[in-house]
Amino acid sequence: MAVVKPVILQVVGYKNSGKTTVLTRLIEKLTRAHLQVVTIKHHGHPGKLHIPRQNDSSRHLNAGALAAIVAGEDDLLLQAAGRAWSLAEKLQLACLFKTDIVLIEGHKQAQFPKVLLIRDSVGMELITRLCRIEAVIVWDAKLQKEASQRINVPVFLLQEDDWLNWITGLLAGRVSET
Amino acid sequence: MAVVKPVILQVVGYKNSGKTTVLTRLIEKLTRAHLQVVTIKHHGHPGKLHIPRQNDSSRHLNAGALAAIVAGEDDLLLQAAGRAWSLAEKLQLACLFKTDIVLIEGHKQAQFPKVLLIRDSVGMELITRLCRIEAVIVWDAKLQKEASQRINVPVFLLQEDDWLNWITGLLAGRVSET
Repeated sequence: MAVVKPVILQVVGYKNSGKTTVLTRLIEKLTRAHLQVVTIKHHGHPGKLHIPRQNDSSRHLNAGALAAIVAGEDDLLLQAAGRAWSLAEKLQLACLFKTDIVLIEGHKQAQFPKVLLIRDSVGMELITRLCRIEAVIVWDAKLQKEASQRINVPVFLLQEDDWLNWITGLLAGRVSET
Repeated sequence: MAVVKPVILQVVGYKNSGKTTVLTRLIEKLTRAHLQVVTIKHHGHPGKLHIPRQNDSSRHLNAGALAAIVAGEDDLLLQAAGRAWSLAEKLQLACLFKTDIVLIEGHKQAQFPKVLLIRDSVGMELITRLCRIEAVIVWDAKLQKEASQRINVPVFLLQEDDWLNWITGLLAGRVSET
């Protein structure tokens, strides 16, 4: 489990703009192309993880452990509590898995290449507020036209699958370069 | 989150010999002494982790991701699936947390210093089968006498708290040496 440098892509956008759907479809497509993926997701609500509190690793955390790792023949669960973890720390964890690609859901202010999801005109403001947008995915033709006028990157419609092929090709190309 | 070298102790013994109880009490005591602890536990049954399969990170795993990390203001959850992880790999994960101490529950055949728990005469056989036993904790006075004749390390009674102070002192001493 040596540390390697994976290709990183962020999927960003306001709540309910389709981030998890896009991420899930990307994972499926990349996995079929024999690329390994690790995901990082931010959630904004304390205690939202709904981890079962009765298992042994929860007992360890409740007793004061910084982190608890439980693993068996085909799975691994790591829980940590008590403080926030920076994106850099989460990336270090992800890199231990020797993955080809890390997909990050959220963390809008981070500095990695991004796919931006826009569901409505409110979301349009993110075009000028975020760095390193490489593609935009929108929910309708009107948003597609407006976004295309504002930014010089491909603007896709969510309901068509062009974005899936385009992003997969982009990532596969970068993996082959590393 | 630089990689540091924590003090490692294993807590081993047959099923229902009290491993989780000993581990939990050690975590509490060490934490009160301002020592940071990360735990590693082995479970032998496929699919035993009872991770909620409806959350987003499970969606990522089901889609084919190698691992999924979800984190918020005060917690972090990492799930991985599809293969077994070696103890060395789990230790690498643990070390990312810059902990003072790693307590390992199980992994009897590993090469780290060990506390052996013995509940009955069947458990006694482990005294000669395991390496690097530094203390033994037994369930009754008869086992204490027998174990003391077989191995030249401290043999404690589980129901008395001597073991707790002794092990904590041992670990604190080693942390201060590193």
